[in-house]
Amino acid sequence: MPKYVYGKNVVSNLLKNNGEILNLYVLEGRNPSEIEKKAKDRRVNIRTVSRKYLDKLVDGNHQGYVAEIREYKTYSIDEITDSVPEGKLPLIVALDGVQDPHNLGAVLRTMACVGGDGVIIEKDRSVSLNGTVAKVSVGAIDTIKVAQVTNLAQTLRKLKEKGYWVVGTDMDNALDYRQPRYDVPIVLVIGAEGTGIRRLTSEICDYKIKLPMEGDIGSLNASVACGIILYQIYSQRSPL
Amino acid sequence: MPKYVYGKNVVSNLLKNNGEILNLYVLEGRNPSEIEKKAKDRRVNIRTVSRKYLDKLVDGNHQGYVAEIREYKTYSIDEITDSVPEGKLPLIVALDGVQDPHNLGAVLRTMACVGGDGVIIEKDRSVSLNGTVAKVSVGAIDTIKVAQVTNLAQTLRKLKEKGYWVVGTDMDNALDYRQPRYDVPIVLVIGAEGTGIRRLTSEICDYKIKLPMEGDIGSLNASVACGIILYQIYSQRSPL
Repeated sequence: MPKYVYGKNVVSNLLKNNGEILNLYVLEGRNPSEIEKKAKDRRVNIRTVSRKYLDKLVDGNHQGYVAEIREYKTYSIDEITDSVPEGKLPLIVALDGVQDPHNLGAVLRTMACVGGDGVIIEKDRSVSLNGTVAKVSVGAIDTIKVAQVTNLAQTLRKLKEKGYWVVGTDMDNALDYRQPRYDVPIVLVIGAEGTGIRRLTSEICDYKIKLPMEGDIGSLNASVACGIILYQIYSQRSPL
Repeated sequence: MPKYVYGKNVVSNLLKNNGEILNLYVLEGRNPSEIEKKAKDRRVNIRTVSRKYLDKLVDGNHQGYVAEIREYKTYSIDEITDSVPEGKLPLIVALDGVQDPHNLGAVLRTMACVGGDGVIIEKDRSVSLNGTVAKVSVGAIDTIKVAQVTNLAQTLRKLKEKGYWVVGTDMDNALDYRQPRYDVPIVLVIGAEGTGIRRLTSEICDYKIKLPMEGDIGSLNASVACGIILYQIYSQRSPL
């Protein structure tokens, strides 16, 4: 299903941030602006159309610019938990403030490899699904269900009521990641690099785990850390 | 130590590829070209200087353009193996054709976290050290020794003579990564995503390992796969 965004600023920002644009519709009979120039540089497909055409595409004040973008399907938490096959131990990842699309893409890819059930991101506080995420995920964006929630803390509480254990990642008050038994339904919460998971999120966790570490760097790339823990869970659940 | 590259094409390509430029020296008294425009767009520090000044910076035909770039220190294989502390089990990663600077940066970062001893990349076939690698490595580029070799196969053979075990990653004829004992000096060889390690490299390996996997995606991001295996080795070497 096509999705349209519009207005000078929105389209200009989309171009500036290298957002994926399937088609750019611009009003005919005007001198090309910076937007057309940038779109041309980025080889966006530009279609010059009438005002009537633009008015049909969108309802709002488009200012002569409408961009068609890809809409990635998202799911509700219930849709994710209901889709876990009977007899399988559920595994969900929640990203708490992870902003980098490369990280989200790589997490989706790893989740596909361990047979994970879904990834939760928070509206406004995390990166959302876009072309970069899709590319880095190598197709996992279409197989791993993503839920975009407005309140992560509330969502985690809801999952606890459904029998999930909320496992956070933290440097303090945390078990070595090899210690816990992961033979229960799990939501693994990964925080942003640098700041980690928020206090509010941390308080909801049933327990927290950490990766042992040498040296001064003190933290791993978020998708690498997530991958190591996911494989620990996956390995433990299917022993040699 | 500053390093200079020069000539219209070289500087223009450096700008096109978003290479890091500390200072751009251009000949005074000429009309600004595309190079100056691009450099300005990228907020490169531009200094307009005399021909004499440029001639002092470099020996060759600079055509009025000299760029100062950062030089990252690299090491020889002997320097890496000699620097392993007495009593520590050595751990080296060799990248076989990994092109993405994000992957190299993340591998360096993980190596710093597991106390690894060095990373080997091949000239011409792998990404080299640059600003993106440095940024993604979060400083690990300055703590993990990198060797840039001309012939990876030859280097691996040399390491075998020094008592290292060469452990490849592959989907076929490979052990589950949890099976081997890693209590020997190890060079872990990571191949490019998609193509994997080359046949020539593969034949040198003492054995190969693989990560178990579900679904259709079939492979992990190179730095995530490397991280999972490095933590397996690190964990096994320092058990709970």
